[in-house]
Amino acid sequence: LGTPQPVAHPACPSLPERRCHHPLTNHEANRQLAYCEDSVKERFDRIVPFLKEVAALPRDGQLGDRIQEMAQDRLGHGFNEALVNDSWIEGPDLKGLFASATFEALNAATKQFGRKLEDQKDDALSTSSFFLDCGFHAVDISPCSDGRLKGLMPFIFRLPPWSFTYRKAYAGALFDVEEDLRLWSEVELRRFREGVPNRADEGSRYLKIAVYHGSSSDPHHEGCAAHGSDERKAAEAALDRLQAFRQAVENAYCCGASTDILLVGVDTDTDAIRVHVPDANGDVSVHRYIDNAYLYQETLNLERDAAHLAIYDAIRSVNETDDWGRTTGGEPHDGMRRFVANLLINNLSQIDYVTERYQGRYPAEIIGHAERYISVGDGFEEVQMRNLAYFAHLHTVEENTNDLDVGIKIFRKLNVSHGLPIPIAIHFRYDGRVPGGRERAVARAQRVCHAIRERHSELDEQDMLYFQLTVQDRPSGSEIEEVSQA
Amino acid sequence: LGTPQPVAHPACPSLPERRCHHPLTNHEANRQLAYCEDSVKERFDRIVPFLKEVAALPRDGQLGDRIQEMAQDRLGHGFNEALVNDSWIEGPDLKGLFASATFEALNAATKQFGRKLEDQKDDALSTSSFFLDCGFHAVDISPCSDGRLKGLMPFIFRLPPWSFTYRKAYAGALFDVEEDLRLWSEVELRRFREGVPNRADEGSRYLKIAVYHGSSSDPHHEGCAAHGSDERKAAEAALDRLQAFRQAVENAYCCGASTDILLVGVDTDTDAIRVHVPDANGDVSVHRYIDNAYLYQETLNLERDAAHLAIYDAIRSVNETDDWGRTTGGEPHDGMRRFVANLLINNLSQIDYVTERYQGRYPAEIIGHAERYISVGDGFEEVQMRNLAYFAHLHTVEENTNDLDVGIKIFRKLNVSHGLPIPIAIHFRYDGRVPGGRERAVARAQRVCHAIRERHSELDEQDMLYFQLTVQDRPSGSEIEEVSQA
Ligand SMILES: [Zn+2]
Ligand SMILES: [Zn+2]
Ligand SMILES: [Zn+2]
Ligand SMILES: [Zn+2]
Repeated sequence: LGTPQPVAHPACPSLPERRCHHPLTNHEANRQLAYCEDSVKERFDRIVPFLKEVAALPRDGQLGDRIQEMAQDRLGHGFNEALVNDSWIEGPDLKGLFASATFEALNAATKQFGRKLEDQKDDALSTSSFFLDCGFHAVDISPCSDGRLKGLMPFIFRLPPWSFTYRKAYAGALFDVEEDLRLWSEVELRRFREGVPNRADEGSRYLKIAVYHGSSSDPHHEGCAAHGSDERKAAEAALDRLQAFRQAVENAYCCGASTDILLVGVDTDTDAIRVHVPDANGDVSVHRYIDNAYLYQETLNLERDAAHLAIYDAIRSVNETDDWGRTTGGEPHDGMRRFVANLLINNLSQIDYVTERYQGRYPAEIIGHAERYISVGDGFEEVQMRNLAYFAHLHTVEENTNDLDVGIKIFRKLNVSHGLPIPIAIHFRYDGRVPGGRERAVARAQRVCHAIRERHSELDEQDMLYFQLTVQDRPSGSEIEEVSQA
Repeated sequence: LGTPQPVAHPACPSLPERRCHHPLTNHEANRQLAYCEDSVKERFDRIVPFLKEVAALPRDGQLGDRIQEMAQDRLGHGFNEALVNDSWIEGPDLKGLFASATFEALNAATKQFGRKLEDQKDDALSTSSFFLDCGFHAVDISPCSDGRLKGLMPFIFRLPPWSFTYRKAYAGALFDVEEDLRLWSEVELRRFREGVPNRADEGSRYLKIAVYHGSSSDPHHEGCAAHGSDERKAAEAALDRLQAFRQAVENAYCCGASTDILLVGVDTDTDAIRVHVPDANGDVSVHRYIDNAYLYQETLNLERDAAHLAIYDAIRSVNETDDWGRTTGGEPHDGMRRFVANLLINNLSQIDYVTERYQGRYPAEIIGHAERYISVGDGFEEVQMRNLAYFAHLHTVEENTNDLDVGIKIFRKLNVSHGLPIPIAIHFRYDGRVPGGRERAVARAQRVCHAIRERHSELDEQDMLYFQLTVQDRPSGSEIEEVSQA
């Protein structure tokens, strides 16, 4: 309780005196990611200073024009005329300007990321081929929806998001087994009908990954809220879900319906991962894992080749452990070993990244909450960055009241207590091949908007809820279509 | 407006003077259905008279015992002791007794129907084989959820409900295209993986049927509420959905993904159907159909064989029409012709049934609403009987507010205005092969119960809402498991 004791950095113990540089770090990638992160955050960070300047402007007949000019200058965009026209009478609509500028920043970020993802299409294809080469015809990943894991794929795993067949976040990583069973059968049907990505009679597998998280500097307060900041509980619950999924596939489709599972933990202070390597039977234990912070430290002073070898050794030897996680199954199949090695090596760069930019750990105000908007619905897969949004994946408020309420509570502190409204971006995907699908996605967005207003009518009456409604066709990289702002 | 003018019965014009008996009617089946209908309705009908007797009992120390005795005698079951124990102090809890007796009657009905469906398992198998023989490896039917269509399969179509691959009712027959696309792929995957009911390379089809309805005696008031009692609109909207589904399958799965569609209308006064026979291209028109009331009349005085032939003639010639519904496609494939003939012939028995028991038309108070409870969730497929329940198929109240509110409005008139509460049976299916599936179905039932209480809190505070929560495993005929009454 109270402020957490400073603990040695688990990957780079010489911190804060001396930074570490791991031999396998990709420095060019780190430079690009830093540029991307800074430019997106900067777009949001300049909004409040801009509004302070607006508040100080003289309230005469030119106020509207001055706001527009200043916006172009400071933010790079103007506002809808209706938002500024009457400001000379009533004073500037600071809440409306705040929400509108936030949505502009969000839209600019999604465009920037969208272009980046577009450029990565070849990477994504080659990563998918790598997965297939490891024996996985589909990789389906469900991290916790915590905002600190939002950069999971581009930052923590260093993998193009689109290389995964499915990616969906759930509170506490407690993914929907029934829905995943449908995805499983969707993949299988494509293999049967179209031979994509390979034929159904090839002995490859469906890989399901769940990602939980904890906090090494303040484990009892800054862990996963969905599991009461109990990391063990978070890991066990995610593993339960993985096993349930695997069992469900076997029960429902029996013979030849083989599924691999993989459990991964993230220390959200350092972004170091922990991979629970399966044994030869595909079984996973919460007690049997490789801690990449430790591996980083162990391999820090090796040559590149030796570091590589050490990582493969670690994967091989983790299943020879003699303690709690003991298994008689032996090491996993070759493809799984390569897959895990790839994850671990990629993550070394991210440990370096956090070491460089944040002296090893995200600072406390970022360890806690610093989200810029609430993302509701299917979420923008274009924006994959730590703590930019609080995300509630939902189709109805009724089914996910808790997720939504937690988000509102966070933003009461972050925004409402400072007189700023809560920007809520509602986003749904549709399948353009299905007639009427777009209309139904729009109707769903409107219904969810209505339900949020109803549930939090007190905030709504205080003009503290602002919405942007968008929909997007199913293929990755489709245009984001704005339906309305309200 | 006002009371509708009496119109000649469309199938049997000699009514009300003289009843008709069609040569193809199955009188034994009619007798059995009549017994079934009477025994179920009687269970509900004796509840109010019983309560009147209870109200008249002396309020002394023996009241509880007397209620239990009288219930055993009049209803065939006792009540939970907690419900009657304190009645000597506070008087009998008439609302609680009403709700509890209604749920008992419902449970007895589901058991009775469940046994009947169990007995029909062989019938269902042979009907499925008949479908397959007609070239349909799956038949998926979506009627309007109107209570007057609840007897669609056993009564109006005379087909075992379980012979259909999927059966789900939607307000206005506006089924969920996305969900049906999933069902389509589920069927296809089974054919690929297991060769059930036939192999994927056999050229059979998926048949999707939508069923709308209208009222011949009061078309502008007693038609489909979801389409403002406009029968044309109801037919067009259902056909739109069918075409969207067919298009969606073709777009999403292209080559070789062939789907047949069939549109059927029901006159809910006479139960006579109208079949919109597809042409040789599988195209359907709202203007091109066979009216079975007319066909009944036309074939009433023929020998059985001649009547049969006349029906096949009608199917062949409907696509030669010269008016609005004109087509150049010619008659549909042989299997579709046999399927439609079977529907028409089966329905002749039901026209006879309504003629015999209700002088050709359901009486006005039954043409309108006379439901006994609200069924929410997935519905009991065991209870398939006209107007027994108002049904709202939903997974969340948020997505189906309108369906629920319409039901509550109906029951405000039927029950609340007479001081009686609204019995609401919440029922969800789960897949027992999926670990945790049952727990999630139970949680869903409880969440929906909570949402209904919240939405209609005024009624809830007046103690006018009573709930029974049940769940059931996916295979047809699984036990109905009571979770709670509240
Ligand atoms: Zn979490
Ligand atoms: Zn979604
Ligand atoms: Zn209807
Ligand atoms: Zn359902």
